[in-house]
Amino acid sequence: MMGQKDYRPMWKELGLNLEGHDQLLTVLGNAYKDIYMSQENRPKGMQYFDFVISEAHGLRIEELMETKKKGNKVIGTFCVYVPEELILAVGGTCVGLCAGAEIGIDEAEKVLPRNTCALIKSFMGFKLAGLCPYIQASDLVVGETTCDGKKKAYEILNDYKETYVMEIPQMKTQRDRTLWRGEVVQFKEKIEEISGKKITPENLREGIKISNDKRRALQRLSSLRKAIPSPISGLDGLLVNQIAFYDDPLRFTKSVNALCDELDERIKKGIGVTKNGIPRILISGSPMALPNWKIPFVVETSGAVVVAEESCVGERSTRDLVDETGKAVDQMIDALVDRYFKIDCACFTPNVERTDHILDLAKEFKADGVIHYSIQFCTPYTVEAYKVEKAVQKAGIPFLKIETDYGMEDMGQLKTRIEAFLEMVRK
Amino acid sequence: MMGQKDYRPMWKELGLNLEGHDQLLTVLGNAYKDIYMSQENRPKGMQYFDFVISEAHGLRIEELMETKKKGNKVIGTFCVYVPEELILAVGGTCVGLCAGAEIGIDEAEKVLPRNTCALIKSFMGFKLAGLCPYIQASDLVVGETTCDGKKKAYEILNDYKETYVMEIPQMKTQRDRTLWRGEVVQFKEKIEEISGKKITPENLREGIKISNDKRRALQRLSSLRKAIPSPISGLDGLLVNQIAFYDDPLRFTKSVNALCDELDERIKKGIGVTKNGIPRILISGSPMALPNWKIPFVVETSGAVVVAEESCVGERSTRDLVDETGKAVDQMIDALVDRYFKIDCACFTPNVERTDHILDLAKEFKADGVIHYSIQFCTPYTVEAYKVEKAVQKAGIPFLKIETDYGMEDMGQLKTRIEAFLEMVRK
Repeated sequence: MMGQKDYRPMWKELGLNLEGHDQLLTVLGNAYKDIYMSQENRPKGMQYFDFVISEAHGLRIEELMETKKKGNKVIGTFCVYVPEELILAVGGTCVGLCAGAEIGIDEAEKVLPRNTCALIKSFMGFKLAGLCPYIQASDLVVGETTCDGKKKAYEILNDYKETYVMEIPQMKTQRDRTLWRGEVVQFKEKIEEISGKKITPENLREGIKISNDKRRALQRLSSLRKAIPSPISGLDGLLVNQIAFYDDPLRFTKSVNALCDELDERIKKGIGVTKNGIPRILISGSPMALPNWKIPFVVETSGAVVVAEESCVGERSTRDLVDETGKAVDQMIDALVDRYFKIDCACFTPNVERTDHILDLAKEFKADGVIHYSIQFCTPYTVEAYKVEKAVQKAGIPFLKIETDYGMEDMGQLKTRIEAFLEMVRK
Repeated sequence: MMGQKDYRPMWKELGLNLEGHDQLLTVLGNAYKDIYMSQENRPKGMQYFDFVISEAHGLRIEELMETKKKGNKVIGTFCVYVPEELILAVGGTCVGLCAGAEIGIDEAEKVLPRNTCALIKSFMGFKLAGLCPYIQASDLVVGETTCDGKKKAYEILNDYKETYVMEIPQMKTQRDRTLWRGEVVQFKEKIEEISGKKITPENLREGIKISNDKRRALQRLSSLRKAIPSPISGLDGLLVNQIAFYDDPLRFTKSVNALCDELDERIKKGIGVTKNGIPRILISGSPMALPNWKIPFVVETSGAVVVAEESCVGERSTRDLVDETGKAVDQMIDALVDRYFKIDCACFTPNVERTDHILDLAKEFKADGVIHYSIQFCTPYTVEAYKVEKAVQKAGIPFLKIETDYGMEDMGQLKTRIEAFLEMVRK
């Protein structure tokens, strides 16, 4: 996380808390070294992603400032429901906001209840402590109503940074689709308004293509992880999915495909990132936002490999493509609406598709066990875990349910539980 | 809570856990004696409500069984969003379900996360432990999507009792109204289907009138509590609002009006339930379902009087009437939709109406302080408390924020905090 160049003038201009930010970069840099650089047998293609991480608060922010100077807009988001295609259509950049580390908790707890999930406390803490260059660089933050915690926290965040909220329906009836279509159209109008540019069939088609290409590359990466032995670690697979929310999409897609070419070679030669025969784990549940690597780190340092993430940072975000055959803007809007409406977020009731999908994934990826991860106080995923557990166990697949925050206090306990689970999986 | 008659055959027929139910009635009976019957200077009109409580699991359930024998339906609900008028129109009975006591927690925690709010754990516990005659007597349970916890818990409850879920929108745009209207129409059709009766202008008009009359009586009671000194305790005021969810509406309305006649007399004579000059407190926040009397009990045994409840069990449920001038069913449906759409539940974002309403209530009721109560893990109200606090403090009104569950472990701590708050209010 430590670039070569002196970015301090830029960070200062963005209103970051320079001292705290230096400390943050040191901590994150060390964590990355310990967790990522200590891995053995990594694909060479990961070097690009290591570089992106090292410049996540440097070069990438400089790029955002450059594009802003040209009059393009930067839109910060927290959720895979925000249609990036509309932002790309007007030459804008869609970036994820900082939400994956235990940062600024004291500040966050001044405005939020202590028993708020770590992700929400984190985004609020990052903003209030002045430590997230992405939110500082954003022209607009786009929130959504996927959970009570975020829905109500955005009202408070809006006091500090303009936050536009999209309403996500809670069921999947025709009525809900109508509501959601209205939200997408209104968001299109908002994007046109703040960018001063009209969305046309041409630029929207281009936006859809860029997003789809990114998803196709991530689908390809995901698919390669079905190989036995897996050619890439779960930590690296997750990292690529995390970086998808921050990097320039064209460059990112190219880099993922280059990585996939290398993995193809590995698979042909029967080379795995780990030795064969170790347990293959599917992680399912709450999003693991950058730099939240806690669970896969424990799993992979306990002699198993994570083969897929059934999560917004993973399969849930990349599974579906937008139909590319639309001619008029209206048709393309319908294609967007349909694509996003398929997402099986736990905010929907009922949400049987998700349980079914977990079983499909476990089969496709030949998972030996499923670990359900929920961020503590993440009500939708924590409650839904009960139905997932029943279905997974009924299918005869070992299941472990974990609920934790971003803190390191429970690392020993988690390691004990995960090791015991893997012991059972191996039998 | 201990009736004279032997209701055990009925409870057995309903599938209740008889031994556990006996214990429950003993505990609740003792709590009622300690909390309610120890109050001094109660209006005589409260005797009716004492009787209702003593027969809540007896005579009232017998009445439900009687009406069911005649082919009428009993519908159990948890939320003031469910349009009771439609149920009344087909001769049905709408009852609240048991959710206000720490019951069946061990059972509930087998299917729900431990950090679920006490109200949700309670309804699940009551059902799983076989202790709620209302849910047993219900032909259908109607849930809603007002919070993540309930929304996802209903999926599990549905495994044990058919649960129909209404989608409540999260904003108040025209699109949301359209969604909500569709939900109301679909609910009408569901009610027609299970009752086998058609909703007509005549029977819906009657349903609307019965509900409005009940609300008018409760509005009258609320209004009388504006008097200084208050003619009735907050505990009794809350009790009447709680019983509104269980009792026969016609008899209830009559009894509330009789109580109000007596309170009118008290006010004319300057008689208060307490001495004059003690702090007048507005309680705002999460619903206090029967028999949750924790906060007003502590407040009123600490030398203050509660004058209003800005809560679903209180003002939020009774404030608005349904327009009665509609001629066709469609017009009446619109009137229902408009009325329910006004409810300022914390599930909406933004929800400025609620903050404004709290300030209005504090003024109207000459409240000396506002206590914001949220059930622990009730995310919508707990997060919204921050905005409420800012607004109330800006208006110069003392404010105390309390987050607690149904347990008695923190009673000492609560008493200390509330006494300190009242000390400050008095200055």
